[in-house]
Amino acid sequence: MTEQSLTGHSIIAGQTVTGRGGTASGVNPATGENLEPEYSLLDTTQLAAATAAAQDAYASFSTLDPETHASFLERIADNIEAAGPALVERAMAETGLPEARITGERARTTGQLRLFASVVRQGDFRGVRVDPAMPGRTPLPRADIRQRKIPVGPVAVFGASNFPLAFSTAGGDTASALAAGCPVIVKAHNAHPGTGEITGRAITDAVRDLGLHPGVFSLVYGPGAVIGQALATDPAVKAVGFTGSRSGGMALVTAAANRPEPIPVYAEMSSINPVFVFEGALADDAEALGSAYVTSVTGSSGQLCTAPGLLFAPAGAAGDRFVAAVEQAVKAAAGQTMLTQGIAASWQEGVTTLAGEAGVELLAAGTEGSTLNAPAPSIFSTDAETFLANDALQAEIFGAASLVIRYSSAGELADAVESMEGQLTASLHLAEADYPAARELLPVLERRVGRILVNGWPTGVEVGHAMVHGGPFPATSDGRSTSVGTLAVDRFLRPVAYQNIPDALLPIPLQQDNPWKLNRLVDGTMEYAGGNA
Amino acid sequence: MTEQSLTGHSIIAGQTVTGRGGTASGVNPATGENLEPEYSLLDTTQLAAATAAAQDAYASFSTLDPETHASFLERIADNIEAAGPALVERAMAETGLPEARITGERARTTGQLRLFASVVRQGDFRGVRVDPAMPGRTPLPRADIRQRKIPVGPVAVFGASNFPLAFSTAGGDTASALAAGCPVIVKAHNAHPGTGEITGRAITDAVRDLGLHPGVFSLVYGPGAVIGQALATDPAVKAVGFTGSRSGGMALVTAAANRPEPIPVYAEMSSINPVFVFEGALADDAEALGSAYVTSVTGSSGQLCTAPGLLFAPAGAAGDRFVAAVEQAVKAAAGQTMLTQGIAASWQEGVTTLAGEAGVELLAAGTEGSTLNAPAPSIFSTDAETFLANDALQAEIFGAASLVIRYSSAGELADAVESMEGQLTASLHLAEADYPAARELLPVLERRVGRILVNGWPTGVEVGHAMVHGGPFPATSDGRSTSVGTLAVDRFLRPVAYQNIPDALLPIPLQQDNPWKLNRLVDGTMEYAGGNA
Repeated sequence: MTEQSLTGHSIIAGQTVTGRGGTASGVNPATGENLEPEYSLLDTTQLAAATAAAQDAYASFSTLDPETHASFLERIADNIEAAGPALVERAMAETGLPEARITGERARTTGQLRLFASVVRQGDFRGVRVDPAMPGRTPLPRADIRQRKIPVGPVAVFGASNFPLAFSTAGGDTASALAAGCPVIVKAHNAHPGTGEITGRAITDAVRDLGLHPGVFSLVYGPGAVIGQALATDPAVKAVGFTGSRSGGMALVTAAANRPEPIPVYAEMSSINPVFVFEGALADDAEALGSAYVTSVTGSSGQLCTAPGLLFAPAGAAGDRFVAAVEQAVKAAAGQTMLTQGIAASWQEGVTTLAGEAGVELLAAGTEGSTLNAPAPSIFSTDAETFLANDALQAEIFGAASLVIRYSSAGELADAVESMEGQLTASLHLAEADYPAARELLPVLERRVGRILVNGWPTGVEVGHAMVHGGPFPATSDGRSTSVGTLAVDRFLRPVAYQNIPDALLPIPLQQDNPWKLNRLVDGTMEYAGGNA
Repeated sequence: MTEQSLTGHSIIAGQTVTGRGGTASGVNPATGENLEPEYSLLDTTQLAAATAAAQDAYASFSTLDPETHASFLERIADNIEAAGPALVERAMAETGLPEARITGERARTTGQLRLFASVVRQGDFRGVRVDPAMPGRTPLPRADIRQRKIPVGPVAVFGASNFPLAFSTAGGDTASALAAGCPVIVKAHNAHPGTGEITGRAITDAVRDLGLHPGVFSLVYGPGAVIGQALATDPAVKAVGFTGSRSGGMALVTAAANRPEPIPVYAEMSSINPVFVFEGALADDAEALGSAYVTSVTGSSGQLCTAPGLLFAPAGAAGDRFVAAVEQAVKAAAGQTMLTQGIAASWQEGVTTLAGEAGVELLAAGTEGSTLNAPAPSIFSTDAETFLANDALQAEIFGAASLVIRYSSAGELADAVESMEGQLTASLHLAEADYPAARELLPVLERRVGRILVNGWPTGVEVGHAMVHGGPFPATSDGRSTSVGTLAVDRFLRPVAYQNIPDALLPIPLQQDNPWKLNRLVDGTMEYAGGNA
């Protein structure tokens, strides 16, 4: 798709719809230039067509056969790849992210769609359970009872600015909701409207290619807060997926909770991802560890949900060597353009506030980048006592900034963890000598985070079956799930039981001869249909 | 346990604690007499000891080996049985429910605990997933990532008045939370304080017998709304289970949502359980069906969450025969004492309101019972047009009352379903000739209910693996789960991922040699540990 072919309009159930709510343009954050075309924004009355179409699409899409359903997800991936360099170039222009990052993210996006296709084919997410009738049971007979999970209904997705592909229009929330069998309405991110349109057309084309109801997907452009509230409160919408700021996420949570029929909101919001460096980890190569930390802080200009915002380093000579290496590495780091001018301004504000806190010092800063909105990466330092006394040091700074906290005892680490809100991740760097200390800290950490890492950095979230990208509030609004990995499909399902239903009336997944070859929990024991065990 | 040995006080982490917040007594609703002893009520400052003890107990209880954990649940069941006739007699006196109902409910309660013990031994609820390391993968290696579900933390349980055993102190919410590995604080129901104490002591004794941390269980008596808010907003409490009224449930939902750290609330609240009788079902024995309907309406004095509050019967001769049978059966039905004077008064108010609605007539009423608070079962009738025009006809009347709606077309049934809020159940009575009509209605129903039945009555909820006792709002505050059946354990778990953690530091369920012999999803394929497949 060439730039000329971008329409600058919403896609509602396969139709291009010109918005009546004003216009907005993408901006190249590296140059400040507006990008063509201008995008027309829907007013809220225009939104009803998208939600009504999604509701109409539910009946057929939620009961689609697994092969067509999986092929649809794969076709989206194919179509994204077929969009070729135009998508990569547009995403680079709209986000300031480098080519390698965008092509990597594209691979993650298509891989994610294909992984969910495998989940759809495999079918365990349908949660089929059968408790057979026991007509002779005393004192009362038991009826035949069958259970399966059904898609909750149309899902509204709000993508992230920092992942224009993997967490936006065709990203993790969309992929998992479509895998569950839910029609999706994506609120296009105004920071990357062209990337959104190219990806949205890849989905729309896949809907058409597979002959699905066009209401399965819509992409709506609009003024963020207004259209967000309208979507979250539309009676046809039954769940919300969101990745972004705490204030944005909580606005949706509140709106959804105050509907006549409240609905679940899965908002991934805020995390400072503490890293704990134990003494033993510094014995071998403290310098390499310091350098790796700076790489994790500055990658993607620090604009990752899992970027390490806090690092606890031991007091003493080994810790000093580590810190010296951090200092050296950050000085050598050049700023990279941030996603938007607003995000760069927020970063500056956060860094200025942190620098003004008593007992906090700038350890070192890198250099500004040569493009706009590319501030110098900055690492600050303080001690555990100061950290524990001041909650303001736990404010998230989105971008390339981090705080090194020097600690003197394991007790200070435990106290620090106890003082923290919920987090997406916590990382430990350690050697075997540190196991006893780690063993004390791990259970405390586990209660506050979604993912624990050892001798690694939290940035770089693997998309697989075992990943959890989630965690207690405010890391997410609902810590019972994940927004990355195959478990994410569970967010958009709910169980229904069928009692004594004649086979001719049962939904296919529950029919006695098991046409879809699903594994089933029969009277508490798994029965394998052959494809999976 | 004899009546003399009831202490009349709360049990906090194994200790008897005298409340400083006033007193309350159980009342025999059949006679109006106060029952000894008086119960002392905690003030909210006394509650902190229970929540702090639960928090303390979490570390050991959440990591308990499966055999001890399962034995604990079984011991609770044993201890409830050992309480013998004293428990049955006390429950009868406090609730007005007949002996057969209470002994049946006791069997359900102990069976439920033993079923959850089997879930704990089986272990799939831990959700173990392993994505092995791929050190040679390009462009980036993959780390070893493992996932399991952990208990969310201490759970506050608010039992129901209408199931003093199966949905109260040692009922479904308590059993499923304990099975998940969550310490439990039960708010004792003031309508059956003695039943609560006997059951609470059965749990406390099991905690002691198995050598568990005493904070695993507390039973707190207090003024309902005040202590409920205090529990739901206590920072140590991480989830709430509730069965009761819509207003009571929503008060907890709101309190929990407005905490600094919001927590999930599973409230089972309100349902009118529509029944749809198709023409074909009346061909054989319309009279028997009419009589069975009245039995379902009047059983347990109609005080069941799944009692059929609405029944749609076809216009015409067969429908007339059905209705005549209903009329005859209800006239022969005697009132039974309701749970409390307040509940009986609410029933009277609901019935009076319904009788006053335009186009609604009293079809027939039975006779009042000979005891107090035993109003005459009452069945009303109207037509579909009237029903569709007036939302007030969908108000839940808790107790032995129901509304028969005569319909003339399948379209009226579909319209009626579309007009309804979320329900626990929907029931269809049909013959093979009705399959086409049922096939149209089922997908519409499925979106609004947790359980669909054919040729049965919704009362009598089987406790098994496939049961769903849940449904969209307002049937429950969270339709993604069930409060009856083994799936209920999932409500109190959340996933955590462990990346590159040395085996020596991994939690037992994730260790490479799999000491607990758990089934695991390895790279997307289930690997069976032998015990289950």
